[in-house]
Amino acid sequence: MAKELKELTPRSENYAQWYNDLVIKAELAENSAVRGCMVIKPYGYAIWEKMQQNLDRMFKETGHVNAYFPLFIPKSFMSREAEHVEGFAKECAVVTHYRLKTDPNGNGVVVDPEAKLEEELIVRPTSETIIWSTYKNWIQSYRDLPLLINQWANVVRWEMRTRLFLRTAEFLWQEGHTAHANREEAEAEAKKMLKVYTEFAEKYMAMPVIKGVKSASERFAGAEETYTIEALMQDGKALQAGTSHFLGQNFAKAFDVQFTDQNGNRDYVWATSWGVSTRLIGALIMSHSDDNGLVLPPALAPIQVVMVPIYKNEEQLRRIDEKADKIMQQLKALGISVKYDNADNKKPGWKFSEYELKGVPVRLAMGARDLENNTIEVARRDTLTKETVPYEGVVEHVKNLLDEIQQNIYQKAFDFRASQIREVNSYDEFKEEIEKGGFLLCHWDGTPETEELVKNETKATIRCIPLEGDKTPGKCMVTGKPSAQRVIFARAY
Amino acid sequence: MAKELKELTPRSENYAQWYNDLVIKAELAENSAVRGCMVIKPYGYAIWEKMQQNLDRMFKETGHVNAYFPLFIPKSFMSREAEHVEGFAKECAVVTHYRLKTDPNGNGVVVDPEAKLEEELIVRPTSETIIWSTYKNWIQSYRDLPLLINQWANVVRWEMRTRLFLRTAEFLWQEGHTAHANREEAEAEAKKMLKVYTEFAEKYMAMPVIKGVKSASERFAGAEETYTIEALMQDGKALQAGTSHFLGQNFAKAFDVQFTDQNGNRDYVWATSWGVSTRLIGALIMSHSDDNGLVLPPALAPIQVVMVPIYKNEEQLRRIDEKADKIMQQLKALGISVKYDNADNKKPGWKFSEYELKGVPVRLAMGARDLENNTIEVARRDTLTKETVPYEGVVEHVKNLLDEIQQNIYQKAFDFRASQIREVNSYDEFKEEIEKGGFLLCHWDGTPETEELVKNETKATIRCIPLEGDKTPGKCMVTGKPSAQRVIFARAY
Repeated sequence: MAKELKELTPRSENYAQWYNDLVIKAELAENSAVRGCMVIKPYGYAIWEKMQQNLDRMFKETGHVNAYFPLFIPKSFMSREAEHVEGFAKECAVVTHYRLKTDPNGNGVVVDPEAKLEEELIVRPTSETIIWSTYKNWIQSYRDLPLLINQWANVVRWEMRTRLFLRTAEFLWQEGHTAHANREEAEAEAKKMLKVYTEFAEKYMAMPVIKGVKSASERFAGAEETYTIEALMQDGKALQAGTSHFLGQNFAKAFDVQFTDQNGNRDYVWATSWGVSTRLIGALIMSHSDDNGLVLPPALAPIQVVMVPIYKNEEQLRRIDEKADKIMQQLKALGISVKYDNADNKKPGWKFSEYELKGVPVRLAMGARDLENNTIEVARRDTLTKETVPYEGVVEHVKNLLDEIQQNIYQKAFDFRASQIREVNSYDEFKEEIEKGGFLLCHWDGTPETEELVKNETKATIRCIPLEGDKTPGKCMVTGKPSAQRVIFARAY
Repeated sequence: MAKELKELTPRSENYAQWYNDLVIKAELAENSAVRGCMVIKPYGYAIWEKMQQNLDRMFKETGHVNAYFPLFIPKSFMSREAEHVEGFAKECAVVTHYRLKTDPNGNGVVVDPEAKLEEELIVRPTSETIIWSTYKNWIQSYRDLPLLINQWANVVRWEMRTRLFLRTAEFLWQEGHTAHANREEAEAEAKKMLKVYTEFAEKYMAMPVIKGVKSASERFAGAEETYTIEALMQDGKALQAGTSHFLGQNFAKAFDVQFTDQNGNRDYVWATSWGVSTRLIGALIMSHSDDNGLVLPPALAPIQVVMVPIYKNEEQLRRIDEKADKIMQQLKALGISVKYDNADNKKPGWKFSEYELKGVPVRLAMGARDLENNTIEVARRDTLTKETVPYEGVVEHVKNLLDEIQQNIYQKAFDFRASQIREVNSYDEFKEEIEKGGFLLCHWDGTPETEELVKNETKATIRCIPLEGDKTPGKCMVTGKPSAQRVIFARAY
């Protein structure tokens, strides 16, 4: 039964179903009683904690500090920046009352009509407006700049079609909001944070990404420029993994945030904002996992090494316990997280498939023969291979193996993506190729009309205008008009 | 001018004003544009991060894991547990709509009346209901128990009279929610977490607390027993610093959470919940700080050591920089957070009062004479004393000094509290003594009526029935009826 419980729909059969099965069966998250909101279960949350720790350190290393701003935004604030409100109005949860009372008809509690707010409050879908209304009081002179602040928070966007981690009504994220004395500095900050996200995605998530700029129609509501990192999932669909926005002076103007520069002149402040969310857990899953379960990069795995004893009697267990304990101590001293599973109500086979499902990178097993030969079995989750190695030196072996697995997972994702990036030169070819998935490098005339046409006819969007790589001009695959460089089209999550 | 900006209302003049001045001027927090909600500024948030890190580690060491549950609670869930809803209904923020639209009259945006929720959602004031509705699916058998989960989250309680950190409409906290197979285990858990809170308060916050049980009328809404730690602020008022609740089977019954025990019998699950919040920052401030500013215990100070160079020319600065750098490296290697402030647009005196205001435990200063004599000036924030010590060995000196300061701050708070605990034997005496503040140890007949009378007549409440100390029975100071032991009365925050 345990085995069946863990069985996943194969990816080849139904990728979306495989994803959902995996999230549920690996106990990462589940849907809650509140439509569109998920419960992040302990194992899923442990991955998020690892992501947070690393990102938070990287933010601090680049000079940022954390703060916390209110969950609620007065409705009138939302309207201050015209494009911003247009982008978010349709998905806002609105607080209208501040009290419940006993139902006079005896049906539990009802909203107290006398406790109506004078002005409705929006549950933040993002915090630019409440933060810039605050920055107004914090910034008077160039000496107050730059302001480099990040916030870890929950946000709510009322989505109609939700999927665990990928699109939920409430999600967890971080949002950086910085203020600068001039355009150049703000633009540099937006690019710097894109670089931080790139490093995080590639080094920790083992997920290669393409850095680029969004087309105007895909820009953040209120931004002058949106930078993005785009990843490719195993099913050939793109996933936007993080964005960094150069906001120009839009929010400073909306909230009248001016400063006095070194020459005594007054000007509006320049801004950026940037964020990544629990969506990254979805990206992590869809980048590496397989039909047996999760494959987690060691850098983000809550448990990096699991050890399972295989024994027929108490004496064997006692001897294995002793040897295991030594390894555990040494691994822990190296900062490697390790779990020893000697629970006696589950068989080794059950445990093996459990940790496979959970994506633990390295599994150690020790049995009677290992005791005899002074060996230990080492299994890798990424390749599903195993080998027997001498007990002495196994700690060093495991340490190196974790690095190798991290590398290998990245390389595999990189090679897959490389096989899925294709130049396409005609719209007919495009319509054929887009069905196969992947990143299609195409010339585009730069107009929202062409972008819209392609989207309506093929469901593909421009993921980004790449910042790096070939910049040769050409002709738009649809209209034949001039194109400055190839852009990336794909169907996306 | 800088000096004036930092000046605080003296505590003796107006304690409440001193507190508010300090929170604002030390840049810990401020009121936001949203009534009752605060902005936690970077320096205040850095203290919260230190608290979080230590508590989170202590929770994990006692076997707990983190998870995340939805921000919203369906209104009907709130009514399931009768006392719970009665306790929280009056302060619930209610989401009724999920969309805004452009105002047809051209005034920004309005709530879209067509986007009304079928069932209103409550912004969580605490998460027992949403969590126990989830636990129902997680718990089938004794093998699923205990469930030891904690959540770091924001909660909203619509308070009418708010004060920064102490009472705000939105606050940050952690809430533990555990499930157990029997009463004994759940009771032990509730007590264990009270012990963890006590250790945190005393060891990290340097704040002595009294462990006790709440009287029935002060219990958490839905609990069978509420354990509390009570601290005494400098103005003689009490502050409830953390609570841990034994919830019996109340929530399990409300959400029908049953399990099969080892003998195949079905029973309802036993529960606890426990939490501390950003309120602790208010407690920290009011325990130790003085008329010059914050006094932070080294264990929670965002900056433990600050170093200020005093120089008349570039050559001196260069030589001080060099010596400072060596100290910095060594302090950092010991895990001590240190800041070197060689900003040239502020004078040393301005910096000294700035770091005094911010409560940095140790200040190092080095000037021309120190260069000559190979010495360094070491100043303590807690005693406002300073000494000149040899440059060699200063790192070891600072390390020991930080420990000494942590001890001293605790001892000072302990001695103050000791001076404020008094046995009171008659109600007349009580009415006089309560005006002087402090913890009054009194006999009480155990009835809510007497408790209510004392509260109405003196504004004093029963802070707790102490778990430790003298348990001699006596006679109620008000009614003369039998009393099992003395309880603590005080006016409270």
